[in-house]
Amino acid sequence: MESDVRRLMQALGERARAAARTLAALPTAAKDAALAAIADALEADTDTILTANARDLERGREAGLDAALLDRLALNPERVAQMIEGVRQIQALPDPVGEIRDLRYRPSGIQVGKMRVPLGVVGIIYESRPNVTVDAAALCLKSGNAAILRGGSEALESNRAIGAAIEQGLVDAGLERHLVQVVPTADRAAVGELLAMDRYVDVIIPRGGKRLIERVSREARMPVIKHLHGICHVYIDGAADEAQAIAIADNAKTHRYGVCNAMETLLVDEAIAARVLPPLAALYRDKGVELRGCPRTLEIVGDLAVPASDEDWDTEYLAPILAVRVVDGLDGAIDHIARHGSGHTDAIVTRDYARARRFLTEVDSSSVMVNASTRFADGFEYGLGAEIGISTDKFHVRGPVGLEGLTSEKWIVLGDGHIRQ
Amino acid sequence: MESDVRRLMQALGERARAAARTLAALPTAAKDAALAAIADALEADTDTILTANARDLERGREAGLDAALLDRLALNPERVAQMIEGVRQIQALPDPVGEIRDLRYRPSGIQVGKMRVPLGVVGIIYESRPNVTVDAAALCLKSGNAAILRGGSEALESNRAIGAAIEQGLVDAGLERHLVQVVPTADRAAVGELLAMDRYVDVIIPRGGKRLIERVSREARMPVIKHLHGICHVYIDGAADEAQAIAIADNAKTHRYGVCNAMETLLVDEAIAARVLPPLAALYRDKGVELRGCPRTLEIVGDLAVPASDEDWDTEYLAPILAVRVVDGLDGAIDHIARHGSGHTDAIVTRDYARARRFLTEVDSSSVMVNASTRFADGFEYGLGAEIGISTDKFHVRGPVGLEGLTSEKWIVLGDGHIRQ
Repeated sequence: MESDVRRLMQALGERARAAARTLAALPTAAKDAALAAIADALEADTDTILTANARDLERGREAGLDAALLDRLALNPERVAQMIEGVRQIQALPDPVGEIRDLRYRPSGIQVGKMRVPLGVVGIIYESRPNVTVDAAALCLKSGNAAILRGGSEALESNRAIGAAIEQGLVDAGLERHLVQVVPTADRAAVGELLAMDRYVDVIIPRGGKRLIERVSREARMPVIKHLHGICHVYIDGAADEAQAIAIADNAKTHRYGVCNAMETLLVDEAIAARVLPPLAALYRDKGVELRGCPRTLEIVGDLAVPASDEDWDTEYLAPILAVRVVDGLDGAIDHIARHGSGHTDAIVTRDYARARRFLTEVDSSSVMVNASTRFADGFEYGLGAEIGISTDKFHVRGPVGLEGLTSEKWIVLGDGHIRQ
Repeated sequence: MESDVRRLMQALGERARAAARTLAALPTAAKDAALAAIADALEADTDTILTANARDLERGREAGLDAALLDRLALNPERVAQMIEGVRQIQALPDPVGEIRDLRYRPSGIQVGKMRVPLGVVGIIYESRPNVTVDAAALCLKSGNAAILRGGSEALESNRAIGAAIEQGLVDAGLERHLVQVVPTADRAAVGELLAMDRYVDVIIPRGGKRLIERVSREARMPVIKHLHGICHVYIDGAADEAQAIAIADNAKTHRYGVCNAMETLLVDEAIAARVLPPLAALYRDKGVELRGCPRTLEIVGDLAVPASDEDWDTEYLAPILAVRVVDGLDGAIDHIARHGSGHTDAIVTRDYARARRFLTEVDSSSVMVNASTRFADGFEYGLGAEIGISTDKFHVRGPVGLEGLTSEKWIVLGDGHIRQ
């Protein structure tokens, strides 16, 4: 016998699949008008959304949620205004759908090219931040995908209120109301059902802690775009400009600690270690960053660092802690990153042309940088306008995922009655 | 306790992962030299390969394999020469790895673009054709990927001989011998092990019958590029040029029957059905093609067709059988394809500009064609130079998969000491 949750989720899936078909062929202007109507509806519903959010917060406090989680959950007029501004920014982005590239004649006389098309139905599973509901809905809509949104149970009322405003916007714009659906239940079984609906859902994007990501990767029967770890490295090469190296190593670690593109391990060429490590160690001490160094690092900076253990090279601290290792030049750095990196973002600081080229080519991470802070690995900084996440996978899309990552390309063939000989 | 097969496969995986790192950064010339050396080694080893193949064939005949399978398994000097020619053609293709696109300055001053990179380690699971061993090895090598090749057990000796020649070519060219590894056992457990090695294998490509594909999709813990069904449609629109329509419907069905891009269902606009169906039905009768028609088709062609059942619309015949349905114009055709198509290849025949544009946009298949035969859906016809398969998935790559489908893109960021404000 099917459970109620299964029936509910199957119905959501069926409606999403049908809605996706109406959306794929929708002109850009119609999608943009819908985004404008959604922004207006969110504006009109701001009080309702804040009231719903207040109920979520109260329930959360009663349930003893910690302060950080409550802060991620909390909305206020300013945060709602930011969400609305985000929708308007996505509205202003170019439409990726229908873009044709490389349309060329073949010897047979047919003309062959590729057309960018939506993936179909995107399922997004996230945790407490209600703004993800709005961002994800807007990105999916603009890229021609129907969306099924499953936020954290602690944000259920907020997400339902936001979902109602989005639905109102879709209806006001004359579109199919089921293009964006918020899963209307806190029942945890809904996640399992969603992950099994490969008939209706073309891709799943989990956003949240490692336990969520790992569960989704394990259970999902459809492709997953995921972000697992952010163990980012900065390698200060022997030929680095010292002032640049110090500024980048400072920024990559201390600009923000809790973010996936913060540096977690600093690699320093032995040729320059004695010159850059002492000023860097003093700088980190002044900012309260704990250093965990390899033996050669400790020789240079003395008691400004504690000894690193083997696990330190594989740890994403997301905190004012930094692992530091002196390496034997570029090969040592590339080798360390290949062994311990997470394929997220890695940077070299150097003035040497050939080493910059080698680092760019040989480091297999979603973002590879020369003379820039790892903190730039971000959809906005890259010009995507918005991002639905950062992929640490190698398949389909790597790094910050914007509208293009929510599409793929089909082949188109134009002929004049051509047949194959 | 680990089984022998597990240990064997883990060792293969580890060596492939290590070899992949040496390959990713290899210059085009080094890869091309290795392909040339592999072609030479295959040429030198032709007798050995044919002898091994003769043993496989003898074992196959003793085991009672059917004639079609034995034919796919069989090599002769001409087929080996074709395999070698294929390697030389792949050698001549442009190298996709390292290609940089859209490198643009951002307001922050950093320059951001995308660089095409290999996926890493590609696992290929296939059935009896030994030529896949050579094609797959050459495509992986050119695209910078290490390959683990698991052919059918009935072709084991052929594949080992071919694998030895490939290894010799790699060694002659001074490259890592484990860049291409043929699984050296017929033990069926090796497939299960391969599908579980997501630590070592970045993507799995199954090539073979539906049972193989379904097993791989179900069990693989890494992404899969797969080809499931080829239920291809030709829609003859009311505004079609009748001679073109007849030529395309003829070619799409009768050029070859057992191929995935052959038409399986013909859709005809009611506005033109009475004019094109009678000559087409006569033509198909003369070529021995059985027609299974909807009631309106039967009214027009009489006893040149038998009644179609519901299953006919969802069947890939791969045989001289064709389902025929009269539909209510373009909307009826698009709707039928959405319900019954397999996302492979669908074509419209029309002189109407707007309907051609709508068909191209609204039909969600890996290849969508106007006034051309579905038989063109093929890597060689599209100019890929070679194909490792045809994907009916929507994620990562659709349709014929060549070198580009074996790569993805990472971000590169170039700065001059830029830090994030």
